[in-house]
Formats: sequence, C-alpha cells, structure tokens
Amino acid sequence: MYYHDKRLQYPVTVDKPNPAFARMLQQAIGGVEGEIRVCMQYFFQAWGNRAPTTTYRDMLLHTATEEIGHIEMLATAVAMNLETAPASVQEEGAADSIVGAVMGGGSAKASIEGMIHKNLLTGGLAAMPIDSDGVPFNMSHIYASGNVAADMYCNVAAESTGRVLAVRLFNATDDDGMKKMLHYMIARDTMHQQQWLAVLEELGGASANLPVPNSFPQDMEDQANNYNFYATSVDGTYPEGRWTAGPTMDGRDEFTVFQNKPLGQEPVLGPARPDSGAQDQQIG
Amino acid sequence: MYYHDKRLQYPVTVDKPNPAFARMLQQAIGGVEGEIRVCMQYFFQAWGNRAPTTTYRDMLLHTATEEIGHIEMLATAVAMNLETAPASVQEEGAADSIVGAVMGGGSAKASIEGMIHKNLLTGGLAAMPIDSDGVPFNMSHIYASGNVAADMYCNVAAESTGRVLAVRLFNATDDDGMKKMLHYMIARDTMHQQQWLAVLEELGGASANLPVPNSFPQDMEDQANNYNFYATSVDGTYPEGRWTAGPTMDGRDEFTVFQNKPLGQEPVLGPARPDSGAQDQQIG
Amino acid sequence: MYYHDKRLQYPVTVDKPNPAFARMLQQAIGGVEGEIRVCMQYFFQAWGNRAPTTTYRDMLLHTATEEIGHIEMLATAVAMNLETAPASVQEEGAADSIVGAVMGGGSAKASIEGMIHKNLLTGGLAAMPIDSDGVPFNMSHIYASGNVAADMYCNVAAESTGRVLAVRLFNATDDDGMKKMLHYMIARDTMHQQQWLAVLEELGGASANLPVPNSFPQDMEDQANNYNFYATSVDGTYPEGRWTAGPTMDGRDEFTVFQNKPLGQEPVLGPARPDSGAQDQQIG
Amino acid sequence: MYYHDKRLQYPVTVDKPNPAFARMLQQAIGGVEGEIRVCMQYFFQAWGNRAPTTTYRDMLLHTATEEIGHIEMLATAVAMNLETAPASVQEEGAADSIVGAVMGGGSAKASIEGMIHKNLLTGGLAAMPIDSDGVPFNMSHIYASGNVAADMYCNVAAESTGRVLAVRLFNATDDDGMKKMLHYMIARDTMHQQQWLAVLEELGGASANLPVPNSFPQDMEDQANNYNFYATSVDGTYPEGRWTAGPTMDGRDEFTVFQNKPLGQEPVLGPARPDSGAQDQQIG
Amino acid sequence: MYYHDKRLQYPVTVDKPNPAFARMLQQAIGGVEGEIRVCMQYFFQAWGNRAPTTTYRDMLLHTATEEIGHIEMLATAVAMNLETAPASVQEEGAADSIVGAVMGGGSAKASIEGMIHKNLLTGGLAAMPIDSDGVPFNMSHIYASGNVAADMYCNVAAESTGRVLAVRLFNATDDDGMKKMLHYMIARDTMHQQQWLAVLEELGGASANLPVPNSFPQDMEDQANNYNFYATSVDGTYPEGRWTAGPTMDGRDEFTVFQNKPLGQEPVLGPARPDSGAQDQQIG
Amino acid sequence: MYYHDKRLQYPVTVDKPNPAFARMLQQAIGGVEGEIRVCMQYFFQAWGNRAPTTTYRDMLLHTATEEIGHIEMLATAVAMNLETAPASVQEEGAADSIVGAVMGGGSAKASIEGMIHKNLLTGGLAAMPIDSDGVPFNMSHIYASGNVAADMYCNVAAESTGRVLAVRLFNATDDDGMKKMLHYMIARDTMHQQQWLAVLEELGGASANLPVPNSFPQDMEDQANNYNFYATSVDGTYPEGRWTAGPTMDGRDEFTVFQNKPLGQEPVLGPARPDSGAQDQQIG
Repeated sequence: MYYHDKRLQYPVTVDKPNPAFARMLQQAIGGVEGEIRVCMQYFFQAWGNRAPTTTYRDMLLHTATEEIGHIEMLATAVAMNLETAPASVQEEGAADSIVGAVMGGGSAKASIEGMIHKNLLTGGLAAMPIDSDGVPFNMSHIYASGNVAADMYCNVAAESTGRVLAVRLFNATDDDGMKKMLHYMIARDTMHQQQWLAVLEELGGASANLPVPNSFPQDMEDQANNYNFYATSVDGTYPEGRWTAGPTMDGRDEFTVFQNKPLGQEPVLGPARPDSGAQDQQIG
Repeated sequence: MYYHDKRLQYPVTVDKPNPAFARMLQQAIGGVEGEIRVCMQYFFQAWGNRAPTTTYRDMLLHTATEEIGHIEMLATAVAMNLETAPASVQEEGAADSIVGAVMGGGSAKASIEGMIHKNLLTGGLAAMPIDSDGVPFNMSHIYASGNVAADMYCNVAAESTGRVLAVRLFNATDDDGMKKMLHYMIARDTMHQQQWLAVLEELGGASANLPVPNSFPQDMEDQANNYNFYATSVDGTYPEGRWTAGPTMDGRDEFTVFQNKPLGQEPVLGPARPDSGAQDQQIG
Repeated sequence: MYYHDKRLQYPVTVDKPNPAFARMLQQAIGGVEGEIRVCMQYFFQAWGNRAPTTTYRDMLLHTATEEIGHIEMLATAVAMNLETAPASVQEEGAADSIVGAVMGGGSAKASIEGMIHKNLLTGGLAAMPIDSDGVPFNMSHIYASGNVAADMYCNVAAESTGRVLAVRLFNATDDDGMKKMLHYMIARDTMHQQQWLAVLEELGGASANLPVPNSFPQDMEDQANNYNFYATSVDGTYPEGRWTAGPTMDGRDEFTVFQNKPLGQEPVLGPARPDSGAQDQQIG
Repeated sequence: MYYHDKRLQYPVTVDKPNPAFARMLQQAIGGVEGEIRVCMQYFFQAWGNRAPTTTYRDMLLHTATEEIGHIEMLATAVAMNLETAPASVQEEGAADSIVGAVMGGGSAKASIEGMIHKNLLTGGLAAMPIDSDGVPFNMSHIYASGNVAADMYCNVAAESTGRVLAVRLFNATDDDGMKKMLHYMIARDTMHQQQWLAVLEELGGASANLPVPNSFPQDMEDQANNYNFYATSVDGTYPEGRWTAGPTMDGRDEFTVFQNKPLGQEPVLGPARPDSGAQDQQIG
Repeated sequence: MYYHDKRLQYPVTVDKPNPAFARMLQQAIGGVEGEIRVCMQYFFQAWGNRAPTTTYRDMLLHTATEEIGHIEMLATAVAMNLETAPASVQEEGAADSIVGAVMGGGSAKASIEGMIHKNLLTGGLAAMPIDSDGVPFNMSHIYASGNVAADMYCNVAAESTGRVLAVRLFNATDDDGMKKMLHYMIARDTMHQQQWLAVLEELGGASANLPVPNSFPQDMEDQANNYNFYATSVDGTYPEGRWTAGPTMDGRDEFTVFQNKPLGQEPVLGPARPDSGAQDQQIG
Repeated sequence: MYYHDKRLQYPVTVDKPNPAFARMLQQAIGGVEGEIRVCMQYFFQAWGNRAPTTTYRDMLLHTATEEIGHIEMLATAVAMNLETAPASVQEEGAADSIVGAVMGGGSAKASIEGMIHKNLLTGGLAAMPIDSDGVPFNMSHIYASGNVAADMYCNVAAESTGRVLAVRLFNATDDDGMKKMLHYMIARDTMHQQQWLAVLEELGGASANLPVPNSFPQDMEDQANNYNFYATSVDGTYPEGRWTAGPTMDGRDEFTVFQNKPLGQEPVLGPARPDSGAQDQQIG
C-alpha cells in the first residue's frame, strides 16, 4: 500500500510561464516514452513477479513508487506553464476571457495555436494524461511479460527513449526553473538505465540470459537459422558488420550470412464455403 | 522499393486445423510483441536513420523486409487453422452453415467460443491485424526515436518479448506443422536479439553508449542524483543488489542508496480565473 | 424509429468564419464531454433500460433524440467556420488553392497552423467526429451501467463537463452568431443537469439511492471501512471537512478518520513454471 | 512524492484459483469503471486543482494514494487466480506445458477459452492494465475538468459504476477469499460515494453549485430554454415526472414541457471550391 | 432536427434467448462494418455536404435517420438475447446470482465464456457500442471526404461489408425471430448498395467520375504511370486479367504492364545534429 | 517472401524543407486514407484469399508490395522536410538547439507550432506512423472481408479517398520536388482505382455481383423492403433521383419510395434481477 507527502520530489519552478512548453512537457507525462508508462510498467512487473525470491518485486516497487512523484512534478510544471499570463499582457490584449488572454499576448508563447486545445477546453489549464499532440495515453504500452530479462530490456528501452525525450525538452527551453527540473529528471533516467542493466548483470549477463527466454531448450529451435543474417537485397549486397561475421554475442556460435530465398511453398487456401458470405465466384 | 516471391519464407503446414490455436497465433501478428510491430519498427527506423554512413539504415532494411515474410507465414497459419473442419465432424454436427460447422464439432477446438469472433464475422475465416483477444494493432507501438542506441534497446526488447511469445505458442500446440513453423521463428528471434546487441557492441558497448543519449554532456545532469538507488519504502528497508553498491555499469561512479524524501516544495497553483469555467468557489 | 426535419433545432449563423474556432468547436462534437457522447449515452441507456415501467426508457429517448440535433448544429457551425475566406483575403494571398487561401490570410484566424489538419485533408473543410486536437471519439465513453442511479450520476457528470466546455467556447469567441448558438446550448445543458437530478429525486434522493447499487445488502459490506476517510499522508495530517466528521450523506452513520496502514499481508506469488516462457532464474 | 509498504492494504487470498474469475477481475483493474481510472482521475484532479485554498487538492491526494493500493490488491488477486492448477488436475491432463495444464482441467474454470489470452501469452499469467475482454485502458477516461463541482459529479459517477461492478463480481464468485476482498472494496466505494457528495454539500449543495459552472452569469444563457423538457416524440406524448412540472432542482424556476420543433433554418453550405479535391459536380 | 417513435422500425423477437448470439450481434452494432458506422457516416456526409444543390445532403439525411432505427433494433435484440434464462434452467443451476444463472445452464449458449464480459459486468446485460470481441467502436471509421464520388464508394463498401456480416449472422442462428429481423436488415442493405450506386450513375457513371477526384486536371498527373499494372514479382511473372490489357475502365487509355524497378535514388538523410538527442556516433 | 532495393520507387526531392508540409504529408502515411492502410489492406486480402484460383491473391500481392515503396517515399519526404533549416536561418535565430533552430525562423514554415510535436520529441525529426494531427494509425482500418467484391469496393473507396488526399497535398505545396513526387503518386492512385474496378468487371459487373454477397439466395431477404427508398422526413417530402424511380442498378426491380413508419412493436425488456447490480427500483 502507499503513502504520500504533499511536497514535491524536487523543486519545480517556472520563471516565465509558456503554454507552448506546457505542450511539450505533456509528452513526458502521456507520451509512450513518458512517466505514466514507466510508473505503471514497473508496478505491473512488480505485482506479477514470479520468482523464488521477492528481490526483484521489491526493487521494482521502490522505483515504481518513485515514478509517481515524477508524473506529479511534470503535471505541476504543465499547470504552472499554463498559469495566467502577466497582467500587462492581459491589458495589451482586448481579451476579457481566459482564452482571449492566452491568445492575446501576441507572442508565439501565448498563442492558443501552440497549445493542445484540450489543456484549455477540457482540463481548464491543467495537465492531462495525453501526449504533446493531445493523444491520450494507452495502457497497451505497459510491458510486463512475465520474463524478467525481457522486462529488463523493456525497461532499458523505456528509460533510453525517456532520457532522449528529457534531453530534447531540456534543449527546447531557456527557462531556468524548467532546466533545473529537467537536469534532475535526466539524472534519474541515467540511474534507471544503470539499474535495469545491473539486474541483467546480476542475472548472469548476456551469455547467461540469451536468448530470452533462456528456459527454452535451444536445441529445439532451428539450428540452421539462429545465427545467420538474412540478406534480403535483390542484388545480393548487404552491409557488413559485427552481425555478419565473428563470434555471436552469447559466444555459442559464429555469425554467418544467408542470401534469403523462399524455403517454403506457395500457400493455397481452400475455396470459400457456399455459406460463408463470400461471392459465388470464390466457391469451388 | 520492394519485390515479392509468392512462395513462403519457410514451410507452413497444419496437421489438424484448430480455430483455438488460430486465436493464439493472432497475438504473433497483431499483438504488441508481434510481427507487424517489428516489421514496421525496423522500417521506420531505417527510413528515418540519420548518421554519417548508411550502414544501419541498410541493415535495418534487410531485416524489416525479412519480417514481412513472417507476418505472411503467420497469416497463412491462421487461415489454415480456420479451414473447414474435417467432413466427419461436419456430419456429426447438424450445421449446414460455416458457423454451425465450426460450432458443431463438440470439441473445444472447434467451438466458436474459443475463437476471436471477428475472425469469422469480419474476416471470413482469415487472419486480421489484431491480437489474440481481437484488439486491433495500434501503430503507436512503433518505436523509432532518432537515437540509434535507444532504438537498438527497443529492438532487443521487442525480440525478447517476441521470442517469449513464440515459445509460449510452441508450448501451447501439439501440431507438428505448427511446431515446425514456430521452431523456425524462435530461431530467427534468437538471431535478431543477437543482431541488435551486436550493433550496440559495434557502437562501443555500454560504456560508450551510456547514458543514452550520450551526446548530452553528462556534467549538465544532476550529479547528486544520477547513480543512487532511491529507497521509497516507508520503513527504510530496501533490497540490496548489484544496483545498490559497487561500480556503476558505465564504470564512471559507484552505486549508492538514498532514503527518499521530498526535496521540493508543496506546489501551489494560482486560483482559477473568473472566466475559466471553474466554480465561483475556486476563484480567489 | 426516427424522423428528421431538415431545419436546424436552433439558428446557426457565423458572422466571420474562423477556422481556429472551428477547431475549438470540434471538442463539443467529438470530445469526451461532447454531444456525440451524450446522444449515444442516452440512447444506449434507453435501449437497455430494465425496470417495471418504461418511464425512464421513454424519457431518455426524448432527450437522446434532442441531442442528435445538437451534433447537427455544431457540425454545421464547424463547416461554416471553415467556409471560403473573403475574396479580398484571397487576393492578398498568392494562393490559388483552397489550402493556400486558408493559409494566406496573414491573420491567426486563417492560418492552417491553427486548424486540425484532418478537417482540411480528410474532411474537405467539414466537421468530423474528432476532438479539438484531431483525436477521434471513442465509444468506450458511452456509460450505460444497467443501474439507473449510476447512470443518472454519469449523466449529471456529462452535462456538467459539457456545460463547462460550452461556457469556455462562449468565452473564446466574439462572433455574435456563435455566441447566440452557444447561449442556447448552455441553456439546454442547464436543463439536462436539472433533469437527471430530478430523476434521482423522484427515485427517493440520496438517502434512498445510496450507496449505489442499493440492491446490495449493506450489511454484507465491510462495516468497519465504509464511512471512514483514509488518511494516507506519511506525517499523519489530513484536511478536515464535511467528510471527516459529522453525519454521513445517507444519514446512516458518522464520518470518521482512519490513519491508513497495511491491513493485509506481503503477497507472494508462486515461482514461474519451467514451461511458461520465463527465465530459468525465475523457476523455483 | 510517495512511499510504499510492501504489505497489502487488505488481505487477498484465493481459496481455489480460477482463471475465469481472473478475467472478470480484470474489469476492476483496466475497465472504464475500474481502479486505474479512479486512481489517476483523483491524482490529475489534485495536481491541477486551482482554488484559494489547497483543501480539495490535499483531500484528493489522500484518496488517490489509497487507490494505488486497490489496483495492487486486484493485480495480486488476478495473479493468484492464474496460479498453477492443483496437481491432481495436472496429472489428469496430458499437458506438460503451462498452457496445456490450464487447458487440461476439463472444467470451465480452467479452460483457456474462458481466459483473456493476453493474460497468458503476453503477461505470463499476471494481471495487465486491460479490461475483462482484453481491451487496454485508455487514459481519455481520466476526467479532470478544472471545475470542482463537475469533477465531484464525475467522481460520484465513477464510484457508483465502480461499486456496481464490485457487486457484480461479488455475486459472480463463491470463493471466500475473493468475497472477503470484495466486501472490503465495496465498502470503500460506499465511503468514496459519500466523500464526493460531502464535498458538494460543503460547497453549498445543489442550489449553490447549479448549474455547473456557476461562474457563468445565468442571465446570459437562453432563458426560454433552460428549464423546459423537450418532447421529441412524433405523436406529442411524453412521460410525465419530476422533470416536467414543479419547481426546478435549483429552486429558481418551474419545469415546463416544450413540444420540440425546429427553431432554426435549413442550413446551406457554400459549394466546394474548384481546387479542394471535390468532384466537378460539387463546384458552383 | 429529429423526432422519434418509440415503436421499432421492424419487429424484433427472440424465441430462445442466447447470450452467445448476443455477442455476435454486437458486431453489427459496434463493429467497423456495423450500424453505428453507417448511421454516423451518412450524417457527417450530409452535414458537411458542399454542392450547388442540397439534393445529396437531403437524401443522406433520410438514410442516416433510418439507420438510427437499425442500431435500436440490434440493441434491443442484444438485450433480449441476454434476458433471464428460463426458470427451469435457473432451478437446475445452483446459482442464485445473475451471473451464476447465466453460467449455470450447462449449455454452450448460456456460458459466461461465450459472452463478452463487459455486456454483463459493465452493461448489466444490455447492448454496448462495442464489437463482437468487446472492442469499442472508434469514430475514425466515419468516412466523409468532402468528395461525393469518394463518399459514395465508401458507402457501397460499408453496405457491402455490412450485408456480408448480416448474412453471416443469419447463417449463424436458428432462432426464427432473429432470422426474421436479419432477413429485413439484409434487404435494407441491398437497397442501400443500390442507392449509392444510383448516385454514382446519376453523377455520370464511371467515365464521368473517374479518376476521383475528377476536378484535378488529369494531364497534371504522371501520364507514364497512370494506366500500367506494376509487376513486383522478383521472377517477372504476373497474373493476367482485365487489368493488364485492353481499354481502361474510364475508356481513356489501354492497360499495360510495367516490370517494376527503382526509378528513384538511394535516399540519404543528413546526419543528426549535435543537439538533437541522437548518439554521438550519428553526428557528422 | 520479400526483397528490397535500397533505391526509391520514384525520385523524392525537396527544394525547400518545410516542417509544416511534413505535417501534412504524415496524413498520407498514417492517415486512414494513407499508404500504410492500402499496403496492409492488400496484403491481408491476399494472404486470406479463398477462391478456386490464386489469380486475385497473386494480383493483390503485386500491388501490396508496390505500396511498401510508397510508404517509403513519403517517409523519406517527411524526413527531408524536417531537415536542418538553411544556415542563414539558423544564424538569424538565437537558437543553439535543434528545437530553437526550428522555431527560430520567424516564418510559418519553420515554426514548431505548425509541426506535429512528436515528429520532433519522439521521432527525432523523422516520419512516424501517425496522421497529420499526430494520431497513430489503428489497424482496424484494414478491411479484408473474405468477400472479393466487398473487398474491391473497399479498395476503390480507399484509392478514391487516397487520391483526394494526394490532390489536396499537391495543391498545398509550391515545392517542385514535392509536386513531382505527388504527381506520380496521384497517377498510381488513378491506376489502382481502375484496377479494382477492372476486377469487379471481370467478375461480371454490377448485375453479377450485386447484392454483395451474391451467394445469399435473394429470395430469402425481405422482398418488400429491398428496393424502396425510405423517406424519413417528418413532413413526407423527399429528394427525387435515380434512387426513387426507374430500374434498379442490378436490373431486377424498380425503385419505389416508402414513407417510413414503425413496422414493429414498442420493445419491453424484462425488469432487472435482484442480484444484477441494479437499483431496487428497477426490480419487478
């Protein structure tokens, strides 16, 4: 179960509210590489964890709980960037409504055009669980496979795209408050990349974990096609690299190259049945 | 641009058509860890690849093209498993319609209850781009970040969950034809896990690539919070492991533990404006 | 069954077409608090209504039918706001295409940037069943629970958020025609809020209806935890109010406060099976 | 920010694991009336709350935090219901795979047909953020309008449909452990219905809050159409009730009935432009 | 604006309620080829129709209004199929709850396994705007392009897939009441196919309408590539037919065949910028 | 199976990169009328084709394969339009980040406001499988019905809306490179409209194919309601046309007009059961 402290994980301040940056920050809340995703992903991995010990369940709970605080920070930052524009701007604009005020600034920052419209019309100038184009987050992005190694790679992927996003947001703003918040979140993403890779190492590293799942006897997979790069170019060329020659990453074989060609038959399905809603012409 | 050969990549045969297994196979077509996903993910990574050389773009094209053939194999397998039930079963059932025939078998395999209904009602007993519960694939699962290392981790994650799925499908069927097809696809997933990890090694491995993105100067992130595990348990306990002590995975620091507590303030948003659609009670 | 009159429910006129306002109006068509939602919600509640009399079914049909006319008004308003810009603006712009014309005005109102692009590219300058950011309406928002009291609260919620939206739209435009249309729709939302609350009163009010569903014998719920506010703050503080002391809203008890703590056990799931696609390390 | 305790909010035990009931429970996790919805809804209402005081923000945080623990309980219950079937059943079945074991029981409870397939194929026999038919939760269901009264009605609606669901689940199982867990969750839903209604009363009750939003001057809405029931039946009949006569719920007027008819014009849009991608026949 | 009559368009009776057939019928309500789709599609085409006359707008309104009554019939049929099972069946089962009753029948028809679970858990045994696998209808399927010929082809497509579905449903049931309802709906689909094709003929038929849109000067399209079949087989074979030789359908040219090959260049994108969140290795 | 050539199907050049046009082009990639849709639609129709011969399966494979190359062209065009703005513009802007550079141009073309934000934040200035408002493509738009005539009408509809879109894009740009690419794609859409209509002619044309499906004995449909236009206007008027009189399109009957009225009963559902989660008031 859970507790809260109403103070934020880390200070969130905005020197100059900017609705356009609020839009960008929404990607870090409701984007597929955002904080709702990692929070819920770690929770579902924890709650469904099956193993002889609860170590990984426990660790995931610590970090999932941390991530709630990240959503909170970002939601606060979005609301702050959507705050009332300065009084002088209001006066310059003819607007006597909040929308007019937001529209009236004359600068790109205050334009309704640069905003996700739902932030105003549906949320009343607050954050929503949507991405930077207003698309709601879909929970199908919560990857929790029941395989701890697969999950850890999913987590590294999530924290890698997450940190790429945070860096882009950092580069996109010149607001000192926002840069400070983001330099913290970028740091936490660094740690979380490390953390999930540390689990993989503790589990024995690539040679022990690969191929995922390692519980399937590898001699039951097609031994002729498990370490060869398929070249599908019509002219037979292919890019050489670490993946076309030399020892495989798990140390069990050598990479080779296969010029791809059909190994199977031309498929032929049976004709349609008379009573299947097909056209007469399809019925044998 | 692209060419096709109407023969299949690998033989697809079904000894005993089983609509219930057709449902399961749909997960490998339109599930989030399925073949449409990897196919389109590699294509979009290739088409948007920015780098001094085209090596990774080229390589991704080879494998993306290979994956089209995997969707094709699975779609063929689904249709075959949905084929007309054996004549004797038909005769046993009173049904003279295709639905009746499928329903009438009396065995779990032939029951309409075990099928995705759209496979019959919408697709006419063919495969569809949906998962094993009938949910259509959503293209937001195509991860292509513009960062080659992040993309490679996304690809390892996709092939890890993909192979986990293929193994579960292999274990779920006792049809020799289906087992043969799957033992091939499991092997290709093995290779693709290797392949994306090989790219990461060629790029310099963990120490060179981490943290992703490595182009952000690491001294600009919060140095006090980039290598410490946050313990969020209310009683101060935490699970010890590779992530709480010892050298970090990139070799640049030591892992430590931080008993989490608020570092920020209690956030206070301004009151609502009179003209913002709030209640009077919210207006300062 | 249904009839139509090709005249509108209420006059819809636009003094000065404004594509940016067309975008805003889309929220009232295809937003989650828009008119498609209430229309379909009332229809599905009516069509599935189970009760000894058809009174509520009948009433819902009346209002659902009214709401079709509201979608129609808004769709007309969107198309009107997307009408050809004035000839003089066209001439000023170099554009000889409709897109150019729309883009060429030089004012915020006529900019393609302020438009939902699909309104032009997919709809040909007409309304679509999408929200103000271009996201299509999803029918999962049609709440029809089979419980009349729950449905009425859902309806009050829908008309409350709906009227909030209409007020925001009213405040956002200075077009007299649009203000007139909206002052009518705001009035209808007022009535509909009243209407669903009137049903709740006719059903006996809060004391008779609560808790919803009232058909579950209340002595079968956990009597120790049905009227106490759970304080989850780590420092034991909580906001006092009507919900922490005094008689409950149904008059059956007194509100109290519970300092939250775990009442249950640490959950332990069994280890993964050898054949479940997990890693070997997860298998006991 | 947030803390956790790894013990559950309330005991979760399953006497006889039942994959079919696991499917049902999924509705309470990822259904539109489930726990992810209320948890996130209260969080976003709290984080975006604008008011002269932080009372409602604070209160919402308490309950949002409580709700995380409810998702956790349900996720645990789903995983437990998906646990290994009893050894004797395994032995009866010929299956040596986990799927086979689940399928092999011969009873409805253990049939793969009764399961959400993704719970097995994607989740590895764990809970997922999906509903009882396998549809992922979509965050567009998080209602946070920026208007505190509208939000409270949304919350009452959510807890009403939520308790209806919990009662249906209670009625659907004969497992004592599950009944005990649900009798607790039903009680909490009772309290939460009370709690949000208490806020509405503290804000002044219906007369003070209606129409929502109360900050829009009511004399600016169409006074001729804000308290009359629209009868849309083609034969002029309508169901009489509390909504057709007598004082309105806010005490400001009397309900009347209006035989609906068009008050507006037949709309005529301009012809299509020559360069708008229309057919020639549409161009004036 | 709109009126209703509470009687149904056509009689809906169910001789023997069958929850499994209720599930199938849901496809005709909320499936992509269902009645919500055509109803809303015709409405949006009507409301956005731009042309010198209102003929097509008017006609579309007539048929859109008719379609509301079809959704109503199907929703009624779903609820009827979900009705209380006969008392004797109830008595046979030990169940004293509605779920138990539905489950307890012992026949495939009454099994909860064969039902969409949301029909029970969320809808309380009523129809919902979902398809036969429980997936909610998404309004992106409302095709209204602003081009009348394109719209008519979309409508023929909708009514063709719609009638295919209705025929499959007819074949799937042996309930006389349901067969009668469906034989009516199949007839209306026949008429609607005719109706939209009649519009295309009235507009001048294929030669006048093609290519859609006909307002784009055809000499501005690539004259070398507008009437040739692209053969993409790697071995140069292709299926001969009406599309490879002979006069084109619009009578303006002859079909030819082109052995496909690249006509363009190898694309080369610029390297990533140093500040774009890419890896260092991608930066030129 | 499949092969690729890394050269493009047709030259793609951009004279002056324009992020606003990149946004528009996204509709042709991930819009419901875009190239992913037709590509996947033709593939799934091919892979599931049931007929006595493989002719249509083969033909569909040729064209599906061609369409991959169209997605590739458009993805390349999007990335090119998102390329680094000219050096002089960069210098004019104060920006030292990629976002700043894009924002800094001062012209509509270079404004971040005119971009889909995910193209920058998630994709790193590359194409994504989303539409022009940032909504991801949903695979439910892949129509493959198992009925060849229905499928062909779906394909004509797809290529008609697709060409309408391509024409709008052509009209929206003044970039010579983009116009050249689009004049090619418009031509291919012309051919594909022809191609699917040619299949319908080869199958016997309207009289042979209608009503779709033609395998359902037409005398089993309601003969009184299969060729009459339903007039639903409350005043009895209706628009006369090809659809109200004269021979039907299949030549089997004459069109007539029916003044619509209820032919069925008022539906009455049973009351709710005591244990179904309804309110007591609903229980008979």
